[in-house]
Amino acid sequence: MTPPFNRVALLGIGLIGSSLARAMRQQKLTGEITGYARSEATRAKALEIGLVDRILPTAAEAVKDADLVILCSPVGTYGALAQEIAPALKPGAILTDVGSVKAAVVKDVLPHVPSGVNFIPGHPIAGTEQSGPESGFAELFTNRWCIITPLPDSDPKAVERLADFWRCCGSNVDVMTPEHHDLVLAITSHLPHLIAYNIVSTAADLEEVTSSEVIKYSAGGFRDFTRIAASDPTMWRDVFLNNKDAVLEMLGRFSEDLSALQRAIRWGDGDTLFDVFTRSRQIRRSIIAAGQDTAAPDFGRGAPKPQ
Amino acid sequence: MTPPFNRVALLGIGLIGSSLARAMRQQKLTGEITGYARSEATRAKALEIGLVDRILPTAAEAVKDADLVILCSPVGTYGALAQEIAPALKPGAILTDVGSVKAAVVKDVLPHVPSGVNFIPGHPIAGTEQSGPESGFAELFTNRWCIITPLPDSDPKAVERLADFWRCCGSNVDVMTPEHHDLVLAITSHLPHLIAYNIVSTAADLEEVTSSEVIKYSAGGFRDFTRIAASDPTMWRDVFLNNKDAVLEMLGRFSEDLSALQRAIRWGDGDTLFDVFTRSRQIRRSIIAAGQDTAAPDFGRGAPKPQ
Repeated sequence: MTPPFNRVALLGIGLIGSSLARAMRQQKLTGEITGYARSEATRAKALEIGLVDRILPTAAEAVKDADLVILCSPVGTYGALAQEIAPALKPGAILTDVGSVKAAVVKDVLPHVPSGVNFIPGHPIAGTEQSGPESGFAELFTNRWCIITPLPDSDPKAVERLADFWRCCGSNVDVMTPEHHDLVLAITSHLPHLIAYNIVSTAADLEEVTSSEVIKYSAGGFRDFTRIAASDPTMWRDVFLNNKDAVLEMLGRFSEDLSALQRAIRWGDGDTLFDVFTRSRQIRRSIIAAGQDTAAPDFGRGAPKPQ
Repeated sequence: MTPPFNRVALLGIGLIGSSLARAMRQQKLTGEITGYARSEATRAKALEIGLVDRILPTAAEAVKDADLVILCSPVGTYGALAQEIAPALKPGAILTDVGSVKAAVVKDVLPHVPSGVNFIPGHPIAGTEQSGPESGFAELFTNRWCIITPLPDSDPKAVERLADFWRCCGSNVDVMTPEHHDLVLAITSHLPHLIAYNIVSTAADLEEVTSSEVIKYSAGGFRDFTRIAASDPTMWRDVFLNNKDAVLEMLGRFSEDLSALQRAIRWGDGDTLFDVFTRSRQIRRSIIAAGQDTAAPDFGRGAPKPQ
């Protein structure tokens, strides 16, 4: 069977790029994968472990004759990359990305996209706390959602072709506007990461509690935050710089709600605490029912299931 | 070999109580386990699944002739329980607990403890997001820390006996003052839970983002918070009501730090964001090195390890 794309170019080969490379090979989605990465070490590693067929010294060379070009680097790099590759893009090609913000990506990339090239932003809601070309695996996207945010004049056939690509990688696909994407992700992903980074930082600054105590007793909840806060700093810096309005909006609501809990603690208002703590159980059950997490009691970390 | 305790009484048979019952049986730490739980359903279940040898209708009856009495119910119940069992406690017995706060427990329980009984508060830093008599497992305490907070006049021999009990359950044991315990746990456990409960609540209140969207796209980070926020509401209400000062202190620091990040986002200060995001990676590495979490990329949830 002919693969759906003759040549796919990956610009950036970290966790997502390397997982895509593995998924594309496993599902035979392309005849050839070309790759570019800014760092020499990543380029060498990607070639060494066979993630790509060819690694090119520039992004423009990597996208030559590619039917599908996927931006997989931190979103802060997209504008310059788009400008560089624009003259080399093949007419009729699909240009997409995997960035965690979408409106800013449209703003940065769209002005450079030549007519005849289908620019269709995308975002797979999948990842781990690890990064780099060796951290990827083909199953990363299985049963996860990929959000595609077509532009008003996007060719419906190209949109469907990109959606099929993600479905072949194991994802479910949803379509929405870039603006709505940014609002949804601000609460489901960006704010959780900001808060996790923040509490780890707060803990590191304490004088009365030593770092070794924070580490020793982390099983009480803290360690779960450090896992999220181990995610790639460059990627996350760019997320917050590029989804400012939605993050500030969600952060404002979070802080208001936290002030209400703070007040309840100060005044010994147990009923308020109990009510807030109870409603979150229902959301947890819904997430498990939707297949977006497992019910296994993970706090036991590898301990046997209850008998 | 004679077990170290002839009879152990568990007052409260939820996650911790049922895990202790299983660990005691596995390690042959007592000749008999008696139990009491406030709820009729829990009492019936504990007997049905063989967690205890005998279940008693009152706490006072359960502690009769016990050499070791362990309070395993939410900390808000300790004062009344201590008052009730005081006349029935065996001279020379050790009375301990598993509560997540310690200074308030001393304040609530100590006034009721008869002379000749060794009251030695304790707290195993272990748990899962599940609760109830069926959620326990013997290995819950393996390689976790148990903090013991002896009182100034605690009998060193009794303290050592209790420490040995926890070591036999698989724990490492540390000794500190109740006040220091409360400060350490405020940052490593109480504040993380408060924040997790809060963000889940914030998400549930949004108008522009539907609940089904929050659930569908939760793999971006939010689901990890819901796991923590699925913990027992009664237990956690009591924790916050009983460790007010330390939690408010840590919450104040957290909010200050969050305001600084908020400002960095508003003003596009990428360097500040990058610096904060980078330092947390080191703490994560230390927690893994200390054996308090695994390095497996859990965001993939059951996905194969990177190849």
